Amino acid sequence: MDGTEQLHEAQSPASPASQDAVLVEVTRGGRVESVHRGHAVVCDASGRVVWSLGDPGAVIYPRSSCKMIQALPLIESGAADAAGLGPQELALACASHQGAAIHSDPISRWLAAQGLSDEDYRCGPETPRDIPTRDALIRAHGAARQIHNNCSGKHAGFLTLNRHIGGGPDYEAPDHPVQQAIRQAFEEVTGEPSPFYGIDGCAAPNFATTMTGLARAMARFAAARPEGSTREKAMVRLREAMAAHPELVAGEGRACTELMRAMDGVAIKTGAEGVFTAILPGQQLGVAVKITDGTTRASECAIAAILVRLGVLDPAAPAAVKRMTPVLTNRRGMEVGAIRPAAALLG
Amino acid sequence: MDGTEQLHEAQSPASPASQDAVLVEVTRGGRVESVHRGHAVVCDASGRVVWSLGDPGAVIYPRSSCKMIQALPLIESGAADAAGLGPQELALACASHQGAAIHSDPISRWLAAQGLSDEDYRCGPETPRDIPTRDALIRAHGAARQIHNNCSGKHAGFLTLNRHIGGGPDYEAPDHPVQQAIRQAFEEVTGEPSPFYGIDGCAAPNFATTMTGLARAMARFAAARPEGSTREKAMVRLREAMAAHPELVAGEGRACTELMRAMDGVAIKTGAEGVFTAILPGQQLGVAVKITDGTTRASECAIAAILVRLGVLDPAAPAAVKRMTPVLTNRRGMEVGAIRPAAALLG
Repeated sequence: MDGTEQLHEAQSPASPASQDAVLVEVTRGGRVESVHRGHAVVCDASGRVVWSLGDPGAVIYPRSSCKMIQALPLIESGAADAAGLGPQELALACASHQGAAIHSDPISRWLAAQGLSDEDYRCGPETPRDIPTRDALIRAHGAARQIHNNCSGKHAGFLTLNRHIGGGPDYEAPDHPVQQAIRQAFEEVTGEPSPFYGIDGCAAPNFATTMTGLARAMARFAAARPEGSTREKAMVRLREAMAAHPELVAGEGRACTELMRAMDGVAIKTGAEGVFTAILPGQQLGVAVKITDGTTRASECAIAAILVRLGVLDPAAPAAVKRMTPVLTNRRGMEVGAIRPAAALLG
Repeated sequence: MDGTEQLHEAQSPASPASQDAVLVEVTRGGRVESVHRGHAVVCDASGRVVWSLGDPGAVIYPRSSCKMIQALPLIESGAADAAGLGPQELALACASHQGAAIHSDPISRWLAAQGLSDEDYRCGPETPRDIPTRDALIRAHGAARQIHNNCSGKHAGFLTLNRHIGGGPDYEAPDHPVQQAIRQAFEEVTGEPSPFYGIDGCAAPNFATTMTGLARAMARFAAARPEGSTREKAMVRLREAMAAHPELVAGEGRACTELMRAMDGVAIKTGAEGVFTAILPGQQLGVAVKITDGTTRASECAIAAILVRLGVLDPAAPAAVKRMTPVLTNRRGMEVGAIRPAAALLG
């Protein structure tokens, strides 16, 4: 579970639509109106696939679901400790937050303590997803800043690592030492060379892997021991920071925040285009979900169903009901349909 | 092509995921990240399927893509003429508008002229999708009203028909004479009994049909003659109103508006959950598209590709490029991927 372990040969890339399975159904009037397919993989601590639907070999972009992997070099390099980062900053480094003050304020302080500011970011501005924050910005005729970007905590981590290693300002470039360190960590924890990368919405590279690679990485986070290697210690700090500060990983009303609050020590993370990951320390299991069509309503339903299936989420918990079997209403508030896991997910 | 023609027996309902075809791909870094499947059918004036992908027998909810069908009784009953409705009001009756002043102002006047108001609506309030209108509402700390609902023109048509026939106030109830008149027209123009209905986001019933039924209905609109039957005359008025006022059918920046402006006399209409229809009078063809997963980015890409294929949309037109092959950028404005029709759509 450190950088010296052997890398497995990646399977040849398969389209995300190849051999996918029906995972989620959307109903209206008691009939299926829309259907979401995808892949789901659960790996154990040895990296073995213990359960799957669809194609475990499908190659995907993990997008923001792998932010805890992207934060490993921040800790392992010593940069996090040199900057005095605590669990809150580490949770924000793994976050796709919605730009509320509870997110942007601590990140601003984190940057300022290092002599950095919004100007140093390379993630681009994004309108805050937190509605009160967005509305306040509209009323003030203000413009969104880079710190409002849902990835601004991850980029604060990139900047902190970059300052520690003395890299140039283009820390988001794929060949920059910051991104190369992330690529190495990513390939080590997925156990596969990454066959290619794409540029994410925040301008940083996002390394592709198989569904199994992503689930295997999460299982390694789950099985990491506080008394283990440097990597294991970093993994423990990150998963515990996420589980301890669910409100920082996403925000009020969001799936990651609400589902983590309903569980004990489980860390989960959404990613764009229908990806979701989960780290189950109690079971030493890792989970990866990809919805082929990229839809978030389906990845949220699927991950909730899998967490219930694995025994870490109470299906009666309001957060579970809201994501796994939400009622769809019309604009008068009347129930008109529902989202539900397909039979294979429940089976 | 009137109410007396024989209804064909509907095929037994098939899930929207049954035998669907890959229609649209989303790429990042030159690789396919997400995939959208669905069904596409083109019918000619005789109701024959002349081209299809996926399953022409798939049963779907047309959602807002069938608003021109829902407006037929408004005209055929004489209610539209009695209320003095012109092409603008008829375009708004077929619209999923975004609640800008160019939409809500004429609808307000239309209601007022009949002694009706926002209070008579049963569609529920919806935040305007037009950003300047939304922002003005937020700055005024105002609340969205029912007239902002994207269906408020359709409901103004329902109210106008209801006033004409003297129905009760619950004009959106499935067994109300207004909705029964719509069901009859719907089954006549699709050529099939509707096997079931669901309640739409605006509280009105939405009648299910096969993909072929929906495309056949659009072909009948396309082939309708100004000198034909009462139904044909109503169809001509509606398709011409839509094509003459594309800004009223959706709004600035929207696919229906921009694509109709780039074509000559073609009427198109989006619907929730990945549906799109098109009426091609010059070719006397009707088109129906349903994306299985319900995603709008894919239905817009697919309908644009089909309109290009049928020779009514210039693939070099900016509106065509924007919907058929849009570039995806990150938050710094750099190109990171694209949406594109799958090979089968282009072939």
